Parts: sequence; structure tokens; C-alpha cells
Amino acid sequence: MDLPDSVVITEEGPREGFQIEPGPIATADKIALIDALSACGLRRIQVGSFVNPKHVPGWADAEAVMEGFTAREGVEYSALWFNEGGLKRALAFENKLTLAGFISLSASEPFAIRNLNRERLGQLDAMRDYVRVHRQAGVPIAKIIVMAAFGCNFAGDVSPAKVVETVADGLAIAREAGVEVRDVSLADSMGWATPRRVAAAVGAVRERWDDLRIALHLHDTRGQGIACAYEGLRLGVTAFDAAVAGLGGCPFAGQPGAPGNIATEELVLLCEEMGISTGLDIEALIEAGRLAERIVGHRLPSAALRSGTLAAFRRRAA
Amino acid sequence: MDLPDSVVITEEGPREGFQIEPGPIATADKIALIDALSACGLRRIQVGSFVNPKHVPGWADAEAVMEGFTAREGVEYSALWFNEGGLKRALAFENKLTLAGFISLSASEPFAIRNLNRERLGQLDAMRDYVRVHRQAGVPIAKIIVMAAFGCNFAGDVSPAKVVETVADGLAIAREAGVEVRDVSLADSMGWATPRRVAAAVGAVRERWDDLRIALHLHDTRGQGIACAYEGLRLGVTAFDAAVAGLGGCPFAGQPGAPGNIATEELVLLCEEMGISTGLDIEALIEAGRLAERIVGHRLPSAALRSGTLAAFRRRAA
Repeated sequence: MDLPDSVVITEEGPREGFQIEPGPIATADKIALIDALSACGLRRIQVGSFVNPKHVPGWADAEAVMEGFTAREGVEYSALWFNEGGLKRALAFENKLTLAGFISLSASEPFAIRNLNRERLGQLDAMRDYVRVHRQAGVPIAKIIVMAAFGCNFAGDVSPAKVVETVADGLAIAREAGVEVRDVSLADSMGWATPRRVAAAVGAVRERWDDLRIALHLHDTRGQGIACAYEGLRLGVTAFDAAVAGLGGCPFAGQPGAPGNIATEELVLLCEEMGISTGLDIEALIEAGRLAERIVGHRLPSAALRSGTLAAFRRRAA
Repeated sequence: MDLPDSVVITEEGPREGFQIEPGPIATADKIALIDALSACGLRRIQVGSFVNPKHVPGWADAEAVMEGFTAREGVEYSALWFNEGGLKRALAFENKLTLAGFISLSASEPFAIRNLNRERLGQLDAMRDYVRVHRQAGVPIAKIIVMAAFGCNFAGDVSPAKVVETVADGLAIAREAGVEVRDVSLADSMGWATPRRVAAAVGAVRERWDDLRIALHLHDTRGQGIACAYEGLRLGVTAFDAAVAGLGGCPFAGQPGAPGNIATEELVLLCEEMGISTGLDIEALIEAGRLAERIVGHRLPSAALRSGTLAAFRRRAA
């Protein structure tokens, strides 16, 4: 079995996880989770969003969170924003955060209309502006994110050709701005991916561009997320997003109660148990996941949280 | 991608699911779930256990359940038992049930001691008696079940060589009794399987015996179950056990709250979305899963239960 030796996991729990919770999450709890995650061996943690508090009230305290967490050596902390206002707020933390912009485009136009209130040309215009503003501020554009890359609750199936077209749109925007982008993230925003769709989309992008690095942002909406991650590993993908305890989900997908992102500890278990190094301390990660559950006050989707690691059983058996 | 055209799924929810629940489940509810499952296109449903009510009080009403459900044309209904007493009780329903015995052996001796109160030689003796009693009653021995085929909470890792040894033990018992057995089920009783371990165990059994048909009985204890099922499909496995809504689990595994069997609807989703026919009506299955949740009175692990099928979104999008 030809699998990669190691992968890099970007933890998105703090950012993705709390915005979907109905109740307010205390700033101190957000900070506590980030600090717990910093001790798990993660190299990349997305810690918050600089977004309009009117639209995402759960991140009204972004500044306080950025000030409050303790940055750990060797960990890259990132944040998300969608416009110039957000960028400006993020720039105040350029010493603590690794600032980078993303060209985010939906492969499904109906999703873009619902989620971003923009159709395809509107998306492209907005991203041109976004890239220009980042260039002016000296903030790099790190990657192209293809949302709804495997299917869409509002459009149905999304073809690999549509994914290729969306990546091409993103590359064109980068090129026009004189920016080189080598990383593409295929995001299963609404849980449509299957291993077969992952293989088809990754294959189509690779066939067109053999120099792009592909990352997978998978959701476990229908229980297929870890199987899709496994297919990614088989295809040699080495960059994945995940959220501790399975925090999060897409607030625009219209499926209350459905799991969101794949759980970091389940992805780590998949990798480590197959000999693929993640650099993560899975037991510390499970403890962080339990902290996340205490913070949100309800069960989170991760099965590994309840069953514990195999290592613990191996020690007991030895 | 070279995947099978179709698979056969054995539904074990009614049998596996209710024995682990703390409270008593009403006989009428068990019957209602079986009847709901019968309408989903399943060809095989395991409907109950004839086991000692002192050990498994949840199945003290096995006779009443067998009498109560409505057998549907084209569906094979099976039950489980472990000894002559159980067999005799099952024989009373030979017109309604497809009676068959299984040579069940644990690949992990510590699991057998905990779960069955028997070490290896004790297991073999017990299975010899079991096969003899079935032969005398004219009940066929359908398959060999290898429990703990991928790892064990009490023994740690279980090697493919141990799986082969266990299958060899089972085949020897069958041969001594003049019985031909062609089916082997590899059971991940405690959620240790990964795709790599599935490939190793299936490969080792196939290398030794090229005429055995391998089935997989997977648990989702650590969120790896559907990824393992996908690996099984890749290897050409076409027989799987599953439990609607993810009912069940192993009462002896010592992990309260951890998921049990892979959820039938998540397995069906994996298969059907990749073009592998299951013959099942996934929307009816999800309704049956919701009935199972109402019956047990708490959330069951299946993600697909909450998110619904993709077909529903496709219809809406069209």
C-alpha cells in the first residue's frame, strides 16, 4: 500500500467550530481551547474570523481572542476574513498571526448566491478586489479554495470539470495580479464527497496542472469524511483540514445537527494507525476535544472522543 | 476505479442493537423496527438472539418477537444462538427463520476469555460440540466468524497470521464434522480496523485459501468503519454486516458511549453514491433509523440520519 510518510493537518476547530453554536461562547473558553490545541503538536491552527459581527456574532470577540491566546513556538496561527475591513483588523495581529489571504470560489453558483450573495461573475470581481487589497497591504495570497467541490445542497452534483473551471478562474485572478499560487484546497462544504468523487476531482485538477499541491477540506456530514480522507491519502494528498471533536459545520447548508468537519483525532487515528506521521499527540488532542465538548455543552460528533485511542489499550494489554 | 457492481448487506440492528441498551425495549417496538426494515429492500435481517435471559435480559422476549414480526417475501430472517438450548428455541421458528449455525472463534484469546469465558482450546471444544449438535438437528453451518480479527482491547494488535490460524481452526472443525464451509466473516468486534489492517487480513486469508468468500463485520468505534468498508469494496468484498442508525456495539468492549456497528444507511450511501447497487431504499432506511432512535430514546451515532440523503437534495435542486 503506497501511502505518504507524513501529512500536515490544519486545525480549524476554534474558527469553524464556534461560529455555528447557538449560544455565545465565552472568550476565555475560546482561548483555553486554542491553548490546549497548541500543546498537541499541531503546526497550523486557524484561531478565529475577522468577520462582520452583525453576520457572525460568534466572532465579535475576535480581537480579544487574538490577544488572549499564548502563541507557541513552531505553531502557525492563522485567521480568516473576507474583505478589507477584516484584513485591517487582522493586520493589528501580524506579529502573532501568519497572515495570508485565500482566493475562495464556489464551484456551485447556487451555493455562492446563498452563502456569499454573489453569482459567478460577482465572485470573480470580489476576489479580484480582495487580491488587490491584499497586494497593497503586502499580505500574500496563499491558496485557492474551491468551495462545494464535490456537490451542493442547492445545485446537486458538481462535476470535476466545474472544479477545474473554478481553479482556472482562481489562477487567472492570481495571474492578473502577478501572484503565484501553487496550493489548491478542495472543500466539501456540504458533505457530498465520496472516495470516487475525491479521486475524480483530484485527478481532473492534476491532469490539468501537474504543479499544483492539493489539500482536502472534508466534512463528515453523512459519515463519509474519513473514507474520503483515506482516498486522499491513497492519491498522495498530504494536506488536510480538520476540527477537533468534529466541531463546526456549515451554517448555510441547512442541515441542523449534522456533523461538520472531519474530527482531527479520527483523521490522526487513521493516519498514525497506518504508519503515516502527523506529529500530533492524539491523547492530548482527545483531551482538547473533551474540553471543546464541555465548552459547547453538548456532545460533539467524534467517535474517537468516546472510545479513546488504541495506544491506551495497547499499554493496558502489554 | 475497480469496485464491485453490487453488495449484499446483512442488517443486524434488531439483534445487535437492542441488547446493549440499558433500559428494556418493548417487544412491540422490536417488531415494529423489524417490520420497518423489511420494507427497505434488505434481503437479510438478523432479528434476534436465543440466548440465556440471565446473561442477556434484553432478549428474554425472543419468542414473542419471532412470533410477532411479519415475514416478507424475499427476505431471509436469521437469529443467533450459542448453544443447544438456543438452537432448540430457534427450531420452533424454522418456518419463519433461515436457520444456520456459525463457527465463531476469537482471534484474540484474552477477548475469548472475557467475552466467552473460554481460552483457545476451550473455544475449539465448544465449537466442535456446537457443530455436532447442529449436524444432529439438520441445521447447516453457514460460516466461520473470526471475532477480534483486527485488534483487541484486551490483547492489543491482532496479526493477520493470527486471523489465518483462527480461520484454519474453524475449517478444521468443519472438516472433522464433514461440513463444507466457504464463507468467512472477519469481525472488528472492538473497532481496531483501519483500511491497512483490512487489506492485510483479507490478503492473508485469500493468499492461504483462494476459494473462501470473505465478509466484513465492521464497527465504527473510532470513526474508521466506513473507510474500512471502502477498503473492503476496493478489495472486491461484496458482503457486509451493518446496523441501521449505527445501533449496537459490543457490550464486552468496555467503552460506554462509543459507536457500535457501522450504520447501514452510511454504508448504503457509500455504495450507491459510487455506483454500487445495494438494492436498498435509503430513504426508507433512514426512516427506520429514526424509528430506532425513537425506540431507544436517545441519539444514535449515524450522521446520515441527521443529514438526509443526497437524492433529496438532488430532487430539490432539479
